[in-house]
Amino acid sequence: MKKAEDFSEWYNEIVEKANLTDKRYPVKGMNVWTPYGWKIMQAIDGHIRQEFDATNHNEVCFPLLIPEEQFKKEKEHIKGFDSEVFWVTYAGLNPLDVKLLLRPTSETAMYPMFALWVRSHADLPLKTYQIVNTFRYETKQTRAFIRVREIHFFESHTCHSDFEDAERQVKEDYEIMERLSRKLCIPYRLLKRTDWDKFPGAFYTVGIDTSLPSGRSLQLGSIHQYMENFSRPYEIKYEDEKGEHKYVHQTTYGMSERLVGAVVAIHGDDKGLVLPPDIATNQVVIIPVLAKGTTEMVSKAAKELFEELKSAGIRVHLDERDVRPGAKYFDWELKGVPLRLELGIKDMEKGKVTFVRRDTGEKSQKDRTGIVGEIREMLALISKDMFERAKKEMDDNLVTVDSLDQLPEKMIRTGWCGVEDCGHEIENRSGMDILGTPVDGETYSGACVICGKPTKTQIYIARAM
Amino acid sequence: MKKAEDFSEWYNEIVEKANLTDKRYPVKGMNVWTPYGWKIMQAIDGHIRQEFDATNHNEVCFPLLIPEEQFKKEKEHIKGFDSEVFWVTYAGLNPLDVKLLLRPTSETAMYPMFALWVRSHADLPLKTYQIVNTFRYETKQTRAFIRVREIHFFESHTCHSDFEDAERQVKEDYEIMERLSRKLCIPYRLLKRTDWDKFPGAFYTVGIDTSLPSGRSLQLGSIHQYMENFSRPYEIKYEDEKGEHKYVHQTTYGMSERLVGAVVAIHGDDKGLVLPPDIATNQVVIIPVLAKGTTEMVSKAAKELFEELKSAGIRVHLDERDVRPGAKYFDWELKGVPLRLELGIKDMEKGKVTFVRRDTGEKSQKDRTGIVGEIREMLALISKDMFERAKKEMDDNLVTVDSLDQLPEKMIRTGWCGVEDCGHEIENRSGMDILGTPVDGETYSGACVICGKPTKTQIYIARAM
Repeated sequence: MKKAEDFSEWYNEIVEKANLTDKRYPVKGMNVWTPYGWKIMQAIDGHIRQEFDATNHNEVCFPLLIPEEQFKKEKEHIKGFDSEVFWVTYAGLNPLDVKLLLRPTSETAMYPMFALWVRSHADLPLKTYQIVNTFRYETKQTRAFIRVREIHFFESHTCHSDFEDAERQVKEDYEIMERLSRKLCIPYRLLKRTDWDKFPGAFYTVGIDTSLPSGRSLQLGSIHQYMENFSRPYEIKYEDEKGEHKYVHQTTYGMSERLVGAVVAIHGDDKGLVLPPDIATNQVVIIPVLAKGTTEMVSKAAKELFEELKSAGIRVHLDERDVRPGAKYFDWELKGVPLRLELGIKDMEKGKVTFVRRDTGEKSQKDRTGIVGEIREMLALISKDMFERAKKEMDDNLVTVDSLDQLPEKMIRTGWCGVEDCGHEIENRSGMDILGTPVDGETYSGACVICGKPTKTQIYIARAM
Repeated sequence: MKKAEDFSEWYNEIVEKANLTDKRYPVKGMNVWTPYGWKIMQAIDGHIRQEFDATNHNEVCFPLLIPEEQFKKEKEHIKGFDSEVFWVTYAGLNPLDVKLLLRPTSETAMYPMFALWVRSHADLPLKTYQIVNTFRYETKQTRAFIRVREIHFFESHTCHSDFEDAERQVKEDYEIMERLSRKLCIPYRLLKRTDWDKFPGAFYTVGIDTSLPSGRSLQLGSIHQYMENFSRPYEIKYEDEKGEHKYVHQTTYGMSERLVGAVVAIHGDDKGLVLPPDIATNQVVIIPVLAKGTTEMVSKAAKELFEELKSAGIRVHLDERDVRPGAKYFDWELKGVPLRLELGIKDMEKGKVTFVRRDTGEKSQKDRTGIVGEIREMLALISKDMFERAKKEMDDNLVTVDSLDQLPEKMIRTGWCGVEDCGHEIENRSGMDILGTPVDGETYSGACVICGKPTKTQIYIARAM
């Protein structure tokens, strides 16, 4: 299946062929993480941990099960999740006195404990995160990594003394996202959701959205400012310097295994995956090109090369299988290894190694001496190019319109007066979903696409994946 | 509370004071992993991953929820777990067509997939593991890390072409346990459970048991040989070299957060935790001893020391808080940091640093030059001593008897003829649980403590924690 012809089918096929997940598990939307997919997910988790540890977040791990009563304290929140939570009602052969639900997200598990943890201003800011599985009973069509019912999930939860400090946290989250996006080679837009589309219980929600090659949008995560919306019902209070008791202000930042889906969808091609060097299980694969009479010499040189790269900390695999080089190229292209090194007797005679980039297919020859430096440079270049190509594609996929007729399947930008009725009308007429307004304050001067009133507000819409 | 006076109370208190877990979560037996406890757990997970990766096991991650029908295929297994599984019966407001249970262990989640993964002898051995949370509705009194209802769990699952290859896997598991036990400084015995006490569905079960200072035994994990007991109902078959279809032989190896509990219980003292250097969040803490007029000099020297150790890869913390050194000693002793370095002007004048071991309290002075080597040696020595002391304590806690009258609260070894009736009678008369017979083939020559028949079989009994 070609990516350009049927993106959706291509995606399903590539995920299966590269053996990233096994969808044959007998519960719909609950897939098995096979070794290759799980390694990539863990590499992403590693980058997330690094970022959140470096910004003084503490990793915690809260229980999966939440008592019904605790879940129902924040009214908007329960309304938002009521139809999609899984309920545990029995233990052994006996019904439970208190029904327990599987976390769809952890606000209601964490906040009763935060109320015990936060006492005084000296306890603030409280910055925590966890990486856990969450559960949502999706009724839409499921899709590997993108829409599943058991979700590998990252969530940070913070408490602050006031709104301003919580706002600073939101800014820090933006910075973290920017650094992560470079490592994952995934561009994104920060779009503030409309009031009627924000996270249940949030004061405001910023979606982290990217564009897929199909023209659809994919939400990678979200950052929420809760203000006191949760701290009031959960009574998370602190004593300030003057002895006054105040409610904390809270933020959260959530991302999921969709990051894997985005990498597959954005960078993959008709040959298979194309993995960003920072998350590739193998960054480099070495293929010895053996010809009669040179087998031993080339094998030995390939092993030496392997050992040198390995001890330099490069994630490298030496493919010594007894199959044709062409078959090896095929396999490693499918697996998305960023850089292939070919080593044959002709390369050796010239003191060279052949480099083949997975992302562009480009071949080049590099000196065998100083190869570690060459590889590091090449991996950095691949990473940079992958990000920039994807960024350009995302930008090219944005169309600014002043009419909602005959919209292409892309991300669309248009003027909006800010009134909810006009918002709903935009969705009705376009058949798309409103993503929101850009947080970076792009200047704009135009008219609401519905009512024609002059406005400085732009709105982004798209069909969501 | 003193450890020697009331071990059980001491354990509960130390877990709370050192802030390893928060038991105030509103579901019994489901505790919150606080940052300090979670870091220790993750360090242990890291060692487990290292061992299983090095022995060619692949990490996977299977779904949490298991459909009822799939769970009920192996009859013994379901009997063993029927009374202690949590059932999901609703999604949103609607009852589920198929009830789902939260994994108490993952055989029944994995094996239908293994039946798809294993096709031919070339697919064997299949060696996998995962680190996940499991759920058991414990009716006994819960205790942090030791008996909980949501369990941080490690499980390896392997498939082999025949019984002998599965037996080789069991031996490899023994070797892995031996290496892990040195890192965790936890001694253990491998005791083969009786037939009536083996894991539900197993051909045989080997318990990994240790002794606690209270004299009670604590099971750290278990290794199971399943033979074809699961592969038959789950139809995990392969085609051998001759084209014949055969059932695989299977093994599993399970361990849990009890490892954290064992470290706390065995090594902790009245001052707090004593962490093995290999899993300590901070292996070394530096306390600058500041006196009037030397503050700046000592602070600077402490910072330099910190940087030197950090860049050498030692996990080190510099405590610059503005409190008395004594208060700092108190805190870090509670947290169990293996080695404390004190640096004051007198040490500096002599070109020395003062070392204080957490495990023994022993003080010594070491040259400032070459300090990295000194610390590495000291940490290795602490680790070795901690293991050996615990091993000696475990051995001292073993009593060999030829009568079941007036047994001390220790691990007891006695003769057993091997007949089940005599086994039950041993449990009745001793009021203890049979752990099993040693797998290392200790020589023994005596009589069954019940019927008096001569026997070469020893049995270990103890009151389980």
